[in-house]
Amino acid sequence: MKKWTVILEIFLKDGIFDPQGKTIKDALHNLGFKEVEEVRMGKVLKIDIYGDNKNEVFEKIKKMSEIFLANPVTEDFNIRVEEE
Amino acid sequence: MKKWTVILEIFLKDGIFDPQGKTIKDALHNLGFKEVEEVRMGKVLKIDIYGDNKNEVFEKIKKMSEIFLANPVTEDFNIRVEEE
Repeated sequence: MKKWTVILEIFLKDGIFDPQGKTIKDALHNLGFKEVEEVRMGKVLKIDIYGDNKNEVFEKIKKMSEIFLANPVTEDFNIRVEEE
Repeated sequence: MKKWTVILEIFLKDGIFDPQGKTIKDALHNLGFKEVEEVRMGKVLKIDIYGDNKNEVFEKIKKMSEIFLANPVTEDFNIRVEEE
C-alpha cells in the first residue's frame, strides 16, 4: 500500500457567525491592514494514511469527516489527497 | 483593485508535539481507521483581501503571518493566493 498525505480543511458554513475570524479581521485593521475585507477561521488536519489508490483514500477521509471530524450541520469541509 | 482569496495554513513545526493531532489519531484508530499513520492539527484562515497583483497580496499576507497571525518560533505557515 502507498502512503498518502491528506489535507482536510474544515470551515464554518457561510452565513454562520465566526467570532474568531471577526476578531482577527478587527485586529488586522487596527494594525493597518485595512485592505482585508473578511476573515474566516477554520481547522486544518494533515493526515498521513495508507491506501491503494487516491479515490479509496478520498472516500475514507470523506467518511471520517462525515461521522467524526466535522459537524455536517454547521461545517463544510474540503479534501486534498497528495501522494507522498 | 482586484479582490483575492487567500488560504493561510498554520501548523506546529515538525517535531513539536501536537496533542490535538495525537488525540484525533487515537480516536480514528478506535473507530477502526487503523490505516491512519499520523495526524497533525492546525489553523486555517480564509482571507478576502483587495490588492493590485498576486505578488503584492502574497507579500502582505506573509508580513501579517510573521508579525501577528503565526508564531515563527513554533509554527510553519503556507500561503495560497487565489483570484476571486
